[in-house]
Amino acid sequence: VPQTYRQVILKDRPVGEPAAHHFELVERPMPEVAEGQVLRRTLFLSLDPYMRGRMSAMKSYAAPVDLGAVMVGGTVSQVVESRNPAFKSGDFVLGYDGWQEYGLSDGSGLKKMVDWRWPLSYALGVLGMPGMTAYVGMLDIGRPKPGETVVVSAAAGAVGSVAGQIAKIKGCRAVGTAGTDDKCEYVVKELGFDACINYKTQHVLRSLRKNCPDGVDVYFDNVGGPILEAVLRLINVHARIPLIGMISQYNATELSPGPNLVPLLFNRALIQGMIVNDHVDRRDAFLQDVSGWLREGKMKFREHVVEGLENAPAAFMGLFRGENFGKLLIKVAD
Amino acid sequence: VPQTYRQVILKDRPVGEPAAHHFELVERPMPEVAEGQVLRRTLFLSLDPYMRGRMSAMKSYAAPVDLGAVMVGGTVSQVVESRNPAFKSGDFVLGYDGWQEYGLSDGSGLKKMVDWRWPLSYALGVLGMPGMTAYVGMLDIGRPKPGETVVVSAAAGAVGSVAGQIAKIKGCRAVGTAGTDDKCEYVVKELGFDACINYKTQHVLRSLRKNCPDGVDVYFDNVGGPILEAVLRLINVHARIPLIGMISQYNATELSPGPNLVPLLFNRALIQGMIVNDHVDRRDAFLQDVSGWLREGKMKFREHVVEGLENAPAAFMGLFRGENFGKLLIKVAD
Repeated sequence: VPQTYRQVILKDRPVGEPAAHHFELVERPMPEVAEGQVLRRTLFLSLDPYMRGRMSAMKSYAAPVDLGAVMVGGTVSQVVESRNPAFKSGDFVLGYDGWQEYGLSDGSGLKKMVDWRWPLSYALGVLGMPGMTAYVGMLDIGRPKPGETVVVSAAAGAVGSVAGQIAKIKGCRAVGTAGTDDKCEYVVKELGFDACINYKTQHVLRSLRKNCPDGVDVYFDNVGGPILEAVLRLINVHARIPLIGMISQYNATELSPGPNLVPLLFNRALIQGMIVNDHVDRRDAFLQDVSGWLREGKMKFREHVVEGLENAPAAFMGLFRGENFGKLLIKVAD
Repeated sequence: VPQTYRQVILKDRPVGEPAAHHFELVERPMPEVAEGQVLRRTLFLSLDPYMRGRMSAMKSYAAPVDLGAVMVGGTVSQVVESRNPAFKSGDFVLGYDGWQEYGLSDGSGLKKMVDWRWPLSYALGVLGMPGMTAYVGMLDIGRPKPGETVVVSAAAGAVGSVAGQIAKIKGCRAVGTAGTDDKCEYVVKELGFDACINYKTQHVLRSLRKNCPDGVDVYFDNVGGPILEAVLRLINVHARIPLIGMISQYNATELSPGPNLVPLLFNRALIQGMIVNDHVDRRDAFLQDVSGWLREGKMKFREHVVEGLENAPAAFMGLFRGENFGKLLIKVAD
């Protein structure tokens, strides 16, 4: 264990897009491990769009990160010293240690990764929060039926890629949207979607209309904005729209107008916001189903791994420009 | 039975607000009653906002009314001649004869009003489509829990007045919006809402914030537009928004922007469009509960009755300007 370790703290609250000067990389002395505590070294840090909300003073899902405090985030770590009988040196743990190289606590909230047969990082992706978000959002709110048409935005991303593959497993036509031709090719050729629209180069409404000849029954929305607006014009009676993310809106400095909701009324359709923390009761079913699909080769998952905690701010900023291709992770240590 | 009878037909499709020249009052020869048919005289015609959608060529809930065809609408009638054994002269029937003084058909779709203990017109109001819309929308989508805050727009209207009273019966705080001080006074003093906001003279967001100190758990929306936008800023976690009508949008000539949906996401809230035709399975429960509440004096209902079929177009146009005060009905005959 070294004498010091590094953290990324929130230095200033962004108005609009986050930039480098909103973060600060600081060095801290390594703390003593007191009786009952467990010290772990961060291996992987998950970077996710929801973190933008925590940078603002405004309430989003949860309380904001205080100025000067460590940025929050899900982590996979390895225990390096334990004075808590529930953990021993060498244990791999899933936690919420945030943007730092080491975490120290009494261990509450840490989950031991016992009999873990997958890459460690999967606990932050396809078998973690993003995968479970896709699972609950698609199955419990989207409720796809065989033969229906399901549209998924950010289809190459951590959540969207899982959501669309679940739609395929459930016998639906799956149409994705993504921001580059490479991502679209991946979504169709690797993930097995029926089509994928590059929303930056194609006319979204026209392309959706062409690729959804029977209308849209489920729209799994990760982005909000103009894609939601276009999809609403094509929804069928009793369509379901799980509202999972609105990455297009997270850097907005004021509440801009949204989509016209008349189609929702005429089609007796539903839009429902969801966060996965409300659905812990679905965790076992999720892990069982998605592990099974991974084993059977029905589910693929791509990761975008950036090395080094010092690169977390830049990687995070890139999320909002679609620079990642797959689940964005920081490899903090080996 | 006279030699002729009158109908109001759709003469032209409105773009924007409907006007007198979109309708035509025509006189028809009285048809012969063929074997199996039943002829009835219209007593009451219901006028409802959804009819605006039927005047447009665009699909709304249902197919548009053809040009030259009789305007559609719910009716209470009395059988004057029957060659169908299921009906006899003098029977009161609930039907969908539209804007005309007589209806003739094989009787399919007609409901005999047997043992009807209420004013006949109630079958088109509190004990009819509007009342059932309020019942299903509030209970099945709104799902109000005791102590919650429920906002209802168009609170003095046929649907809103029932919805808000149900919220009170369920132990909620009910806050209405309406377009005149008279209506607001009625909503509070007669219907028992806790507060009512005149959206034409008061600042809606500010007044809502004042009158909903614990936020909004259910918004029963009949109007869409700026009131929906304001309420969305005040919703609580897991709020439910039954989207029942969007009268503010029905005369729109293009899809205007709607509300920003970020609050829906952050609060894991739900907006769901509903039309009552999808919920016939709830009819018995509705009739039993609402009749009971009427008998016990827990439910009041106000009607706005205009005499004479010739006045139907003007009365209908007045709906969109809030000129009615209570359920709008045409008394076609005694």
